[in-house]
Amino acid sequence: MNGLSIQDICEPTLLLDETKCKNNINRVVSKVKNMGIQFRPHFKTHQSKEIGRWFQEFGVEKIAVSSLKMAKYFAQAGWKDILIAFPLNLRELPETLLLTKHINLKVTVSDIATIEFLSNILTFPIDVYLEIDVGYGRSGLPIDNFNLIAKALSLIKKTKFINLIGILSHNGKVYFCNSKDEVIEQNRIFLGKLFDLKNKLTSEGFDLILSVGDTPSVSICDDFYGVDELRPGNFVFYDVQQAYLGSCDFEDIAVCLAAPIVAIYPERNEMICYGGAVHLSKDYIEIDGVKFFGLLVDIFNDSWSFPLENSFVRFITQEHSVIKTTPQVLSRYKVGDLIGILPIHSCLTADAMKKYLVPNKSWFAHL
Amino acid sequence: MNGLSIQDICEPTLLLDETKCKNNINRVVSKVKNMGIQFRPHFKTHQSKEIGRWFQEFGVEKIAVSSLKMAKYFAQAGWKDILIAFPLNLRELPETLLLTKHINLKVTVSDIATIEFLSNILTFPIDVYLEIDVGYGRSGLPIDNFNLIAKALSLIKKTKFINLIGILSHNGKVYFCNSKDEVIEQNRIFLGKLFDLKNKLTSEGFDLILSVGDTPSVSICDDFYGVDELRPGNFVFYDVQQAYLGSCDFEDIAVCLAAPIVAIYPERNEMICYGGAVHLSKDYIEIDGVKFFGLLVDIFNDSWSFPLENSFVRFITQEHSVIKTTPQVLSRYKVGDLIGILPIHSCLTADAMKKYLVPNKSWFAHL
Repeated sequence: MNGLSIQDICEPTLLLDETKCKNNINRVVSKVKNMGIQFRPHFKTHQSKEIGRWFQEFGVEKIAVSSLKMAKYFAQAGWKDILIAFPLNLRELPETLLLTKHINLKVTVSDIATIEFLSNILTFPIDVYLEIDVGYGRSGLPIDNFNLIAKALSLIKKTKFINLIGILSHNGKVYFCNSKDEVIEQNRIFLGKLFDLKNKLTSEGFDLILSVGDTPSVSICDDFYGVDELRPGNFVFYDVQQAYLGSCDFEDIAVCLAAPIVAIYPERNEMICYGGAVHLSKDYIEIDGVKFFGLLVDIFNDSWSFPLENSFVRFITQEHSVIKTTPQVLSRYKVGDLIGILPIHSCLTADAMKKYLVPNKSWFAHL
Repeated sequence: MNGLSIQDICEPTLLLDETKCKNNINRVVSKVKNMGIQFRPHFKTHQSKEIGRWFQEFGVEKIAVSSLKMAKYFAQAGWKDILIAFPLNLRELPETLLLTKHINLKVTVSDIATIEFLSNILTFPIDVYLEIDVGYGRSGLPIDNFNLIAKALSLIKKTKFINLIGILSHNGKVYFCNSKDEVIEQNRIFLGKLFDLKNKLTSEGFDLILSVGDTPSVSICDDFYGVDELRPGNFVFYDVQQAYLGSCDFEDIAVCLAAPIVAIYPERNEMICYGGAVHLSKDYIEIDGVKFFGLLVDIFNDSWSFPLENSFVRFITQEHSVIKTTPQVLSRYKVGDLIGILPIHSCLTADAMKKYLVPNKSWFAHL
């Protein structure tokens, strides 16, 4: 099972470059530490107990996940301080409460109804983050509606078993930025609003930490004044979207889909790979009006090249990738060869592939 | 494990409505049979040996799949006549050849290089379909380049171990049509070109079957003159995309994601469900400039409702669905309830979910 080399690969396989991955972890751990902020990386990207161990080697002790299933998986792997950074799923409440007996589990509440429900049912204290939506429009109480936030806090105050420890938010908007400057500006606005809220709550007697986290801002920005905890996730692998955004260099991307070439069409400078939507996901980015679903790289014995010029996944179906490339690239490849595809969104690719191959070393599990 | 009721569901769960699914199978099996065409349904949509058995009950004996892995899975489940309708993966050639010793396996060749490779390496005959691309731009020899097709046939003629039995094509263009009439016209053009090619090849001494197949045309069109074999797949479940295209009614959609409601925002007529891109896939459709990733339904004990008015998945991230709905719908639901989401593209949802629940009856496997 261990020690599979690249040349043994027959099916689409997600390669993991240990050096790049550890460098990514090290860089972000050091940066956050130097800023004096608590680090609680989000493990939803890799979902792997082996990769989790690399974080432990860098001194990480607290993590975030996005489901009870992930929390249980990492609890079994020895993690003791886990935040489920996803709106509490009341259908899993009994099992969630059970897990609080074994580890230091924190949950997220994101609307009034859930707080009301908890206030009627809890019989022992649980640690809770209140989720705030700063205009992303996903989950969380809207930051501009202070009446609603006040209502939530008032309910929580009356409920002795909700131990409110922090406010939490995710700045999803930065993923839609087009430059580092935009990310910095977006992050400044986002943190400013949350800092005002935190101050207001402090003045009303709440002692809360402020927890935020997304890969672009943690990678690009230097000013996190007022933030107590950072929870980025994607940085462990990065991906093509993050490289275009400026969060990383292409050389930092730590996962790559090895895909067998199954047809070559020199007449149209295209090839077909076995490796489609069920492997990469259908996430794409659009640059200058051209959509693409991955970037082509050469695969080496233990890693891969910089993206090849003018070579990208033009379109994708269940198992097919249609790759537009150049005569130069095509001349170097034949059917039956393996080629690499850097994913647009590594979280979804990792979830689809369910395991990683560290070439010549071992398979790594994925939840 | 068996007999789980809807009320026991805690996590996103893919429900399968047995009656709808069997009706879909029955309708298409009967239609194809009445046209006197061989039926070779594509099993890449369901990838389930249990659902495969339903096809057997309707007399189906031949199937198509899109990977060697699927071929082996269905061979183990007792299927004896399997076409891998995906460009032959030379990295799996030894295992593929091994499988030809156990079942009646057919493979697909889609470019010149693969034929050249096979002509040098085969030591016993295998049944082969030649894939033709009628302008879709995925895999296959381009129908307008007869020189290339002639070259392929000349190579095959010289190779005694390539037993060419048919030409195969997939009309992917119909998935981009906007009405039944467009599908009918697109299918007419597609089949006309293939019919001309088949006649030309017949006049040159080839005795080949013509194999085509896609769910929109098989569901909508009545004229398949000249076609010997049909290979649609998606019809077993259908989905929102197919309903908008006119391939089916919304009532025919046979799978539905049951998703726990984890937050409700009456102020914005939205709710958040546990059920995101890793469950539904990121496939979407756009109607009148509005993108959506699924349609909302009420879940009953053993099935679900017609899509609820003005209620759809507006945006989706790894585990979150953001659902836009109406005050009327919101007033009927509370956090912790289950709601149903009809998938845009059931093939990808089924692949992501990896198993099906037939409510109150049993779990069905997925490869």
